[in-house]
Amino acid sequence: MSLRLHAPVVLPCDASCTVLRDAVVDVVDGRITHVGAAAEAPAFDGEVRRLSGILLPGLVNTHAHSPMTVLRGLGSDLPLLRWLQEQMWPNEAKMTAADIGAGMLLSAVEMLRYGVTTSAEMYFHGRELVSSVLAAGSRVVFGGAILDVPGMDWKAMTEDISSWIDSDGLVSGPGGRVELAYGPHSAYTLAPAQLTEIAAEARSRGALFMVHVAESPFEDEAQRAEHGSVPALLKASDVLGGRVLSAHSVHLSDDDIALYAAAGVGVAHCPGSNMKLASGIARVPEMLAAGVAVGLGTDGPASNDDLDLFEEARLAGLLARVSTMDATVLTAAGVLLMATRGGARALGRTDIGALETGRWADVVHVSADDPSFATGLDAPDEQLLANLVWGSGSRAVMDVWVAGDHVVAGGESTRVDRAEAQAGVAEVARRLRSS
Amino acid sequence: MSLRLHAPVVLPCDASCTVLRDAVVDVVDGRITHVGAAAEAPAFDGEVRRLSGILLPGLVNTHAHSPMTVLRGLGSDLPLLRWLQEQMWPNEAKMTAADIGAGMLLSAVEMLRYGVTTSAEMYFHGRELVSSVLAAGSRVVFGGAILDVPGMDWKAMTEDISSWIDSDGLVSGPGGRVELAYGPHSAYTLAPAQLTEIAAEARSRGALFMVHVAESPFEDEAQRAEHGSVPALLKASDVLGGRVLSAHSVHLSDDDIALYAAAGVGVAHCPGSNMKLASGIARVPEMLAAGVAVGLGTDGPASNDDLDLFEEARLAGLLARVSTMDATVLTAAGVLLMATRGGARALGRTDIGALETGRWADVVHVSADDPSFATGLDAPDEQLLANLVWGSGSRAVMDVWVAGDHVVAGGESTRVDRAEAQAGVAEVARRLRSS
Ligand SMILES: [Zn+2]
Ligand SMILES: [Zn+2]
Repeated sequence: MSLRLHAPVVLPCDASCTVLRDAVVDVVDGRITHVGAAAEAPAFDGEVRRLSGILLPGLVNTHAHSPMTVLRGLGSDLPLLRWLQEQMWPNEAKMTAADIGAGMLLSAVEMLRYGVTTSAEMYFHGRELVSSVLAAGSRVVFGGAILDVPGMDWKAMTEDISSWIDSDGLVSGPGGRVELAYGPHSAYTLAPAQLTEIAAEARSRGALFMVHVAESPFEDEAQRAEHGSVPALLKASDVLGGRVLSAHSVHLSDDDIALYAAAGVGVAHCPGSNMKLASGIARVPEMLAAGVAVGLGTDGPASNDDLDLFEEARLAGLLARVSTMDATVLTAAGVLLMATRGGARALGRTDIGALETGRWADVVHVSADDPSFATGLDAPDEQLLANLVWGSGSRAVMDVWVAGDHVVAGGESTRVDRAEAQAGVAEVARRLRSS
Repeated sequence: MSLRLHAPVVLPCDASCTVLRDAVVDVVDGRITHVGAAAEAPAFDGEVRRLSGILLPGLVNTHAHSPMTVLRGLGSDLPLLRWLQEQMWPNEAKMTAADIGAGMLLSAVEMLRYGVTTSAEMYFHGRELVSSVLAAGSRVVFGGAILDVPGMDWKAMTEDISSWIDSDGLVSGPGGRVELAYGPHSAYTLAPAQLTEIAAEARSRGALFMVHVAESPFEDEAQRAEHGSVPALLKASDVLGGRVLSAHSVHLSDDDIALYAAAGVGVAHCPGSNMKLASGIARVPEMLAAGVAVGLGTDGPASNDDLDLFEEARLAGLLARVSTMDATVLTAAGVLLMATRGGARALGRTDIGALETGRWADVVHVSADDPSFATGLDAPDEQLLANLVWGSGSRAVMDVWVAGDHVVAGGESTRVDRAEAQAGVAEVARRLRSS
């Protein structure tokens, strides 16, 4: 399969957020083989598609519990603990594997419509979850949520998924769409020895270890009392050193940030969730300045309440600016890179998150037919990035390719009937309400 | 003209944010004549439209400079003062009346697509601005921006518009679409005596006086040094007492808030602009608790960077929650009311902002065909409001009526060719860039 995408603007999301004009992205067998100005492009033997808008890499959602879409909006005006205890946990206890599959199917379709081609999912029932991602044609890093509850055998759970996806444990599936990870929930729901053991196994396989850290000021008081901070606990428990993704990471000290930078820990910043649940304001500018790999996450759609990573990018910028009282602290380019390249880096991946030769061809086409781009695609680079990030966002996403497959066309999934996926979620939600 | 809109969910935006199920909104000659359950509705002689989603009142944008869409994205990573001095002011000096008309036309279309049926505009060239609003079929409160610059005669400017709209100075035009107001820019660009004089004239006509107050911590140092605060200056200058809209109002003391509550001053809260420009966090929960009428504003699209008031509603809720570390401080219902009824109240208007008998029939139909509503329109009230406010937002706006006229159908303007309006703005933007 050979495909050349040719557009007036291409944003490869390289480290300096270059804006290419009149450029092409060449794709062979799902991988990018060339990106550059059309005038200097090599001869190409394959389908050429002329597009009228902006091409950029598929967005990377570094932290999600997407099947929770079946609970979206439930108890959303409650304080965090009551929201968990009265709404989330009782309902999650009633959710079946099929419910999770139904939720993930709609969420994968929703994310693709917003240009999100990869999500890191910490949840239950991996087979059904991953099957739905594949049905939608999307990409996932899946870590089964590990909690210290009776009957949960995380090794068996991991083995089950690992054997099912037919790999040594990491990237597999068509277009390398599935990566197996480890999802220990947090340091306040697991003992240090459990974290140590899980981390050792993840490290031995080169797999990602993803964990909630310092989300609210309240959750980890016992851990902080003993270790000073959750990052210090992770270090003391020999968790760091491999691929580690620290979700939320709102309440970090200077020492914690320095530790993360030194240990190469990635952070999934979730501004929408942190704001709505009143968890606090993560120190993103300080983390970026220290060299920490910061990506963006939606968290679950029950707490946010959608899966729009463009919106998280905008929120990240807005929140950083107002909380530091410095309008220059995060630029449009800066937040766009967090949503793409930075997210891939936070997950420890170099095969997604940018339009670069050798990476998977996860590509988003944003239409210029939106008031946000009315000043023209020929506007200066900075203005064009502002129009995309602060203005249009996901609204104008028109086409999406994952590993070169055209999975969204005209703003809709080419793989899944969205109305049917919505009906599937409606059925689950109704059953949960009435049971 | 008689029209009955019949939908599974109607949100009248009454003070308690009631959710009506299977209900109708009756419209005769542009005004609402009845709202209530379909089963108890009176016989109706006119067109009946069955709709499948949610009806709510048109949103009220209480503070905008919408023609600035021609500058959207320019210098958006600069600090406030450099942004104004290097980008906004030099470009605004080059804008003609026709440019402003072109900008307002696209902005009115953009707002209508997002369900915003009224905007309060402080800008220049009222005839062209208002003409564009009328061409789009929208509604406006227009106050010519008054600055202390040579050659600006605010009385003549107001007379010109007043005579042109053929009224005693207030509401006029088809469907009462145009209200004339007074737009003194701020207490740091006008002398107290000028504010006093403008306020006296506005009050004598029962007109709205709209002014920027305490937006950034820096702008009004001289005024604060002399009067303690800008609200205190306004009181000392005999500005308060009539209809007054205080835009931004970020840096207010307890005394300022008490003064606003006592004097019936409305506030246009602009969270998106305040965050992006790093102006600060307005004390919205305190203002609401004190009884101040708080509406929402987009501010100009050059600083925000769009005209999506649903997004402002979400930002208002998110920012209030995280800044107070209290997830219950603003509910979905609370922010929805700010975007509608509260906005009308802040403008001193009782004829818009709610679906109530006697008000203008400014109605928005949000489609339920969106992942945000997948848990079903039969979800409990609180969940449904959350799905609308935190989830779908403007994305699913399908139809809009202003004074009973169907001005948006299928998500697009019925009055203006959007592509042409965009092309008009592109032409202006290109000329400004090259001149
Ligand atoms: Zn989480
Ligand atoms: Zn303003």
